[in-house]
Amino acid sequence: MSNTEHTNQESSSIAPEIASRRAFLRTSALSALAAGALTACKGNTASAANASTAQNANSTKGDASGGSMGAHPAPVSAAAAAEEMDRMHEAGIKAFPAKTEGKGNELLAPRRDGDVQVYELTCSKVQWEVSPGKKVEAWAYNGVVPGPQIRVREGDRVRVIVKNELPESTAVHFHGLELPNDQDGVPFITQPPIKPGQSYTYEFTIPDGNYGSHMYHSHHNAAKQVGLGLLGAFIVEPRRPKPIERVDVDYTMILNDGTHGYTLNGKGFPATEPIVAKLGQKVRIRFMNEGMMIHPMHLHGMHMTVIAKDGWDQPAPWKCDTLNVAPGERWDVIVNCNNPGTWAFHCHILPHAESDHGMFGMVTALIVQK
Amino acid sequence: MSNTEHTNQESSSIAPEIASRRAFLRTSALSALAAGALTACKGNTASAANASTAQNANSTKGDASGGSMGAHPAPVSAAAAAEEMDRMHEAGIKAFPAKTEGKGNELLAPRRDGDVQVYELTCSKVQWEVSPGKKVEAWAYNGVVPGPQIRVREGDRVRVIVKNELPESTAVHFHGLELPNDQDGVPFITQPPIKPGQSYTYEFTIPDGNYGSHMYHSHHNAAKQVGLGLLGAFIVEPRRPKPIERVDVDYTMILNDGTHGYTLNGKGFPATEPIVAKLGQKVRIRFMNEGMMIHPMHLHGMHMTVIAKDGWDQPAPWKCDTLNVAPGERWDVIVNCNNPGTWAFHCHILPHAESDHGMFGMVTALIVQK
Amino acid sequence: MSNTEHTNQESSSIAPEIASRRAFLRTSALSALAAGALTACKGNTASAANASTAQNANSTKGDASGGSMGAHPAPVSAAAAAEEMDRMHEAGIKAFPAKTEGKGNELLAPRRDGDVQVYELTCSKVQWEVSPGKKVEAWAYNGVVPGPQIRVREGDRVRVIVKNELPESTAVHFHGLELPNDQDGVPFITQPPIKPGQSYTYEFTIPDGNYGSHMYHSHHNAAKQVGLGLLGAFIVEPRRPKPIERVDVDYTMILNDGTHGYTLNGKGFPATEPIVAKLGQKVRIRFMNEGMMIHPMHLHGMHMTVIAKDGWDQPAPWKCDTLNVAPGERWDVIVNCNNPGTWAFHCHILPHAESDHGMFGMVTALIVQK
Repeated sequence: MSNTEHTNQESSSIAPEIASRRAFLRTSALSALAAGALTACKGNTASAANASTAQNANSTKGDASGGSMGAHPAPVSAAAAAEEMDRMHEAGIKAFPAKTEGKGNELLAPRRDGDVQVYELTCSKVQWEVSPGKKVEAWAYNGVVPGPQIRVREGDRVRVIVKNELPESTAVHFHGLELPNDQDGVPFITQPPIKPGQSYTYEFTIPDGNYGSHMYHSHHNAAKQVGLGLLGAFIVEPRRPKPIERVDVDYTMILNDGTHGYTLNGKGFPATEPIVAKLGQKVRIRFMNEGMMIHPMHLHGMHMTVIAKDGWDQPAPWKCDTLNVAPGERWDVIVNCNNPGTWAFHCHILPHAESDHGMFGMVTALIVQK
Repeated sequence: MSNTEHTNQESSSIAPEIASRRAFLRTSALSALAAGALTACKGNTASAANASTAQNANSTKGDASGGSMGAHPAPVSAAAAAEEMDRMHEAGIKAFPAKTEGKGNELLAPRRDGDVQVYELTCSKVQWEVSPGKKVEAWAYNGVVPGPQIRVREGDRVRVIVKNELPESTAVHFHGLELPNDQDGVPFITQPPIKPGQSYTYEFTIPDGNYGSHMYHSHHNAAKQVGLGLLGAFIVEPRRPKPIERVDVDYTMILNDGTHGYTLNGKGFPATEPIVAKLGQKVRIRFMNEGMMIHPMHLHGMHMTVIAKDGWDQPAPWKCDTLNVAPGERWDVIVNCNNPGTWAFHCHILPHAESDHGMFGMVTALIVQK
Repeated sequence: MSNTEHTNQESSSIAPEIASRRAFLRTSALSALAAGALTACKGNTASAANASTAQNANSTKGDASGGSMGAHPAPVSAAAAAEEMDRMHEAGIKAFPAKTEGKGNELLAPRRDGDVQVYELTCSKVQWEVSPGKKVEAWAYNGVVPGPQIRVREGDRVRVIVKNELPESTAVHFHGLELPNDQDGVPFITQPPIKPGQSYTYEFTIPDGNYGSHMYHSHHNAAKQVGLGLLGAFIVEPRRPKPIERVDVDYTMILNDGTHGYTLNGKGFPATEPIVAKLGQKVRIRFMNEGMMIHPMHLHGMHMTVIAKDGWDQPAPWKCDTLNVAPGERWDVIVNCNNPGTWAFHCHILPHAESDHGMFGMVTALIVQK
């Protein structure tokens, strides 16, 4: 399923019509790009923006403006290099969203044991396709990076069974949840490590008021294990959502920057997933940083209204277009999709998003369909 | 003209008496340093602060406290090194503000075409003097780094004609403006790249409510192009400024940290420009980060009241003396200049501001004149 | 004395019963760890969390799950490596809080000269034990890193006498205090440098309203000198504390990341100091970053309520569990200790907190005793 969820329904069901929505999104995203956004490049005559070749290229001062080619071979080479650069940039954009094997952050449907929602997480080594053709070693929950999304509600009773098939010990910390100490997941402080081949069971009730965007991840040899992919979203829905939370699309965006490179939900551009909404819809984005660096995420075309930090409501919503997300932080924002088009959405540390070979890493798009 | 502007006038003219104010600032800044601030070093007898040599330097434990020189040559060398370090520090301070060739972020007067304000930006390679004698290759708008400041008002109709004289393609993104998609400046998503020798025209109306401190910069091969200098301030004045915005001095400070080193408005200390105000005046500072790193800017002597983020009013102003500015972010602050003197103002990542050769890079001063 | 202070008393005395509290804390912290927190690792039968070996380790897919050893020696080695890793992790936790020589940030009792509180700071080179057995060169105030804590009240008259026994010049900047310009501590702008062997006297009155968490540190060759340890807390208590400030424990946590490694109050884990409170108590933590990097500090088990930035009250308190602290910033938070246990408290840039050799650097614990 998609990372994009409907949540403005009152239903207690948290995993509605996954397959159909997923198919819709894939189709709409691709068609939006193919039929909508990219046609702008073909020259929108209704627009005041016009590309025109300079009246006389030879009269410009630019290095690529030509002149007698025999005597000055360098400009030819520079022009060819510039063309090749553009070609690589275009190829990246046209490939978006590129297919890759594996998809993380999909909703994990719990097994029921009486009143308890039971989630099973198996930790193992896998090969993970970060971007088309680029496979890396990952340490993953249930074979995907990020691990599957756990989504519960305030007051729910939750059991998480962790099976360790890794070559070293691990443990799971529920980052942001205020649990009894023995459920905190820190080896030798709150529990023994879960050794290779062992299983371990966490069980707890989500405390009242502890709703919001949280995470689960390894807390043992974590600089390595989280960097390799042992991380996932743990979202707690409030019993009574506030009006500002009634959105059409609920998207979780997990940032990482370890050995897999710069990734959004485990993938680098052009394999990242676009966020798709219709004009007039509201989108909630839950930023979560599981990396080692800050990532100031910049949305084009529309601003973001910040409503929560680490799951806690901000005293008053505030607006921005670039939100600095530090390691371990979660920030929730609302976007009112009032501006149609395909909007770049990327980390504004530019070397995390673009090279002379084109955009890569922490780049995706918010597509607002008319 | 100076980066410092008067904006508390109701006049619709945005570029008043530029030359005279610029001359005033240059003179006052230099005289303030020469006659005011630095005299404090000569010993202010009205002050309780007194430098005194230790009663008996030989009795101290410090490595530089001497002793028999023949037997212990190292201290002599250490003392000489310490003196040399001080001399370099002093030379840097005394050189401030040092003259360099070229000045960026000066207000660009638009040409009028009916109701449209027309700005022309030519992208080209130049040699840029970052600090005295240090020339670097820059890719610049109109030959300066930052590019000239564009300053308009909510609701204005604006045309920006970009001419590319660079050896590679480019495009201009208006960072923070909520424009129609085809004006967003992202090659292959919203427009074709502007190839070497080509021109391209953007035209749009500034949306209501979209006032504040914004930026324009390259969005093609941007990690390189913005790092080399293709960036500038795009400021939108509100139709109805709030009382807190009625300031005496309006200063824009663009941070960068690419191949030009650590710079404020394209210059490294001591070539940075001081901000000058009179006692009792209010200064607005618009921080803009076009670099790849955070820069927590620290003002000595007075606090800053934060009023806006990315052009959007904060729900309530808040105070600080060190403001962390991340790449792509803009923060607007007000300083009530109630403390006379020359106040250091620098990035608090200390290696961005000082070495054993003295202060450099992201250092300037706020000079409050009695 | 401890960095932990009682401040919820109305008394004007700021240094109460230091020795007895210190002894109490040391004892309680150690006993809490020995008797309380770590017993959870022995298997808490009242808990739903159970460690169990997998029914059949050989049937799992993990690399360490064995098989025929002769033919596949690698898994044996991997298992041994995993065991060794766990052993090192456990040893680190068991050593916490480890004894080291020297303790910084202890309250400095002033000498009285009429109405003036006189503090004497001697700068010198020392050997500093950052973590057990790891000694580094430090440049220190009064021989400790951080320097001793200066704690005064709004309106107090303060004299600080600085004696320089270092091999190079120095100066002291009171970061966050809004002092007369000639007390600002910037060589060649507001004073001459304090040369090796010299003394220098600062004297000022704490301005009204300028209360909060401030710092003092070198402002000469500061990238080096502050990195080596010339830094300390300068705390100004308000005349009239607000209700939210009436806490049981007042803890100052100074972050650094220079040549001494990643440190909290001058020590790396396991030599860091736990914060200890009783269930139901309120703790105030004053984060101060004297380093060159951001440090997003993450508290387990309970959230933090942010009340002040750089000493200035935030317009409204707001909650988080991970607080990004940038160089030069100070953030004050309140923790309501409503969750008993030993809670990990660390920088969430994981390589600042953990390696495959176990936790190190910016790690401590908040111990909430029943």
